[in-house]
Amino acid sequence: MAASSEISSLDSVIANSLTGKALQEYNRIHYGRTDHHELSVKKSNQKNAQENGFEISAYDFPARKEETRNPRVVKVGIIQNSIATSTDKPINEQRQAIFDKIRKIIEAAGEEGVNIICLQEAWSMPFAFCTREKQPWCEFAETVDNGPSTQFLKDLAIKYGMVIISPILERDEVHGDTIWNTAVVINEAGKVIGKHRKNHIPRVGDFNESTYYFEGNTGHPVFETKFGKIAINICYGRHHPLNWLMFGVNGAEIVFNPSATVAGLSEHLWAVEARNAAIANSYFTCAINRVGTESFPNEFTSGDGKPAHKDFGHFYGSSYVTAPDGARTPGLSRIKDGLLIAKIDLNLCRQIKDKWGFTMTQRLDLYAESLNKAIKHDFEPQVIRKK
Amino acid sequence: MAASSEISSLDSVIANSLTGKALQEYNRIHYGRTDHHELSVKKSNQKNAQENGFEISAYDFPARKEETRNPRVVKVGIIQNSIATSTDKPINEQRQAIFDKIRKIIEAAGEEGVNIICLQEAWSMPFAFCTREKQPWCEFAETVDNGPSTQFLKDLAIKYGMVIISPILERDEVHGDTIWNTAVVINEAGKVIGKHRKNHIPRVGDFNESTYYFEGNTGHPVFETKFGKIAINICYGRHHPLNWLMFGVNGAEIVFNPSATVAGLSEHLWAVEARNAAIANSYFTCAINRVGTESFPNEFTSGDGKPAHKDFGHFYGSSYVTAPDGARTPGLSRIKDGLLIAKIDLNLCRQIKDKWGFTMTQRLDLYAESLNKAIKHDFEPQVIRKK
Repeated sequence: MAASSEISSLDSVIANSLTGKALQEYNRIHYGRTDHHELSVKKSNQKNAQENGFEISAYDFPARKEETRNPRVVKVGIIQNSIATSTDKPINEQRQAIFDKIRKIIEAAGEEGVNIICLQEAWSMPFAFCTREKQPWCEFAETVDNGPSTQFLKDLAIKYGMVIISPILERDEVHGDTIWNTAVVINEAGKVIGKHRKNHIPRVGDFNESTYYFEGNTGHPVFETKFGKIAINICYGRHHPLNWLMFGVNGAEIVFNPSATVAGLSEHLWAVEARNAAIANSYFTCAINRVGTESFPNEFTSGDGKPAHKDFGHFYGSSYVTAPDGARTPGLSRIKDGLLIAKIDLNLCRQIKDKWGFTMTQRLDLYAESLNKAIKHDFEPQVIRKK
Repeated sequence: MAASSEISSLDSVIANSLTGKALQEYNRIHYGRTDHHELSVKKSNQKNAQENGFEISAYDFPARKEETRNPRVVKVGIIQNSIATSTDKPINEQRQAIFDKIRKIIEAAGEEGVNIICLQEAWSMPFAFCTREKQPWCEFAETVDNGPSTQFLKDLAIKYGMVIISPILERDEVHGDTIWNTAVVINEAGKVIGKHRKNHIPRVGDFNESTYYFEGNTGHPVFETKFGKIAINICYGRHHPLNWLMFGVNGAEIVFNPSATVAGLSEHLWAVEARNAAIANSYFTCAINRVGTESFPNEFTSGDGKPAHKDFGHFYGSSYVTAPDGARTPGLSRIKDGLLIAKIDLNLCRQIKDKWGFTMTQRLDLYAESLNKAIKHDFEPQVIRKK
């Protein structure tokens, strides 16, 4: 299905089709609040967005005022984008074209006062892992500290005093030139404060990523930034509740899920998984998916008996934010670049922990014991048969 | 809000408001398939349902035909119901009134060839735990093997050759007359093959259940029945991904989630949690919620500063089934008793495991190690601060 025949979003279909009580009830039951708490965006940024072909929207998640803690209000931004030129162009040219479009979106975020921004998975390249070709795609891999993406973003981080999460294809020159799928965290002073490597690697559909890199070896780090404690669950890790859990156990208040996933495979799961994680772990989650259809120079097959082809299918965007109470924003477009801003009060995390008590009632000791048994070769599942 | 002013369901709002491409796209993206695969129900059962004020609907979840395994098609039924008389009536009378209405629904299920049926949490009583009164409500507690609910259901199990899951308030006479929130599994020969006790007990809103019973001590049993391997995640356990996970680790193919939850608290979470569990664990989940508003003889407060009152709020029904691929049925009504039947091929579980690979990629060894560290008193979360 070509992008032109795609609906722009399920959220827009609903907003255009329902009215009155029906719309109010839809919003209450589906989104978790009757009003989206939409925030206005500067005229200059609306103009920037229109001229540069991206969507911009902003929503508020206030918390109850506490007596003993000040509000901890931060603005989070998430960016979804298509690639910017064709995949047969020289590597540097492809990357520069993406930099050029991303700069304009980050500038808009900066002017809206965004404090923490996260880009999509492997944002500085096409998602070429469908091809199983090592070259030229491995040439997109970059070092964490001094690669072109980090260099490019450091300046913007300093300019806007912004923490930037940059998910890249990493080249680890110290450890045998190995390749990793990695999120780099750059703080508001332009320093790389750390990295996280994707914990769970897919082998599904055209996601041949296990051909390129292994399961991450960086654990579940939480980065304590000026603006809150953040973590990154990269793409396929969103299917694994334990991955989400450990970021929560380590104290995350916001978990970003930079992704790249396509319509035929996962679109009906998209609204469920990152949202469930926010609920189960009493933190904010930010689900980010790339957008558009990417075509590659050489044809490849999809292990489904169908003819060889050159495109990956439609990356459906639909990035959204969920609060710890389960309320969520509408999604960005399915077909267009976008910036979604959420003004959030981090105090809501603990308020929801107090209300629902999930961390208190989760019985981690029981599960530590159960999992220790489950991983043994001689594990006997607890199965009850007819007496 | 009185039941009469409630919309009957979000699903009916959508079906009545969207048409053509918009409806098709809504179904694809939201439900996971463009067509609901609705099955017809016998005329006699439609009549039974209409005469006795319950809804009946049925859906099909076929699987790919395999060469080396036969299809394993079973019919699963879930029942949601309001109580049947006022809560100031004698205990036996209240229970008998519920038995009388449930018999008719189970008969309909039996005549549709349902193989496994599950009732809602504490189905044979009002959900009186909001009151914090021990009496008369503890008198509803029953023994697993010979209590009135088990006696009542045994006959129906034999009559229809049906496995019945009966979530009751349990009285354990052997262990100090203790009270538990327990699901009893009765097989198609009318034998009690085992029980499972609710693992996670809420302390939220009016759910004062921790006043009555403790966290379950029965682990995560999977019951190997004639019709497949089943487990029960009772109510609040659906908020805990680890609880869902362990039933999967023990081999469950269908996990029932008999619940009792109200509109003000959890309605926007309802479509997310059991569905996420089906996706994450590659099994079927059946989310069941009671329906209606229950009023009690004496007033109680809700710990929210509001005046004392006598009702629990609106139990919103909306029971639904999700397949391992994430496709789901529409929900039953928000306001009416109902029977939802899903004809499912259990082969789909392994087919989805092969496709998505979640059990292969879930790195249980990593999490066993991480959780073992996390439960220690001197646990140090993995936090990265600015260098």
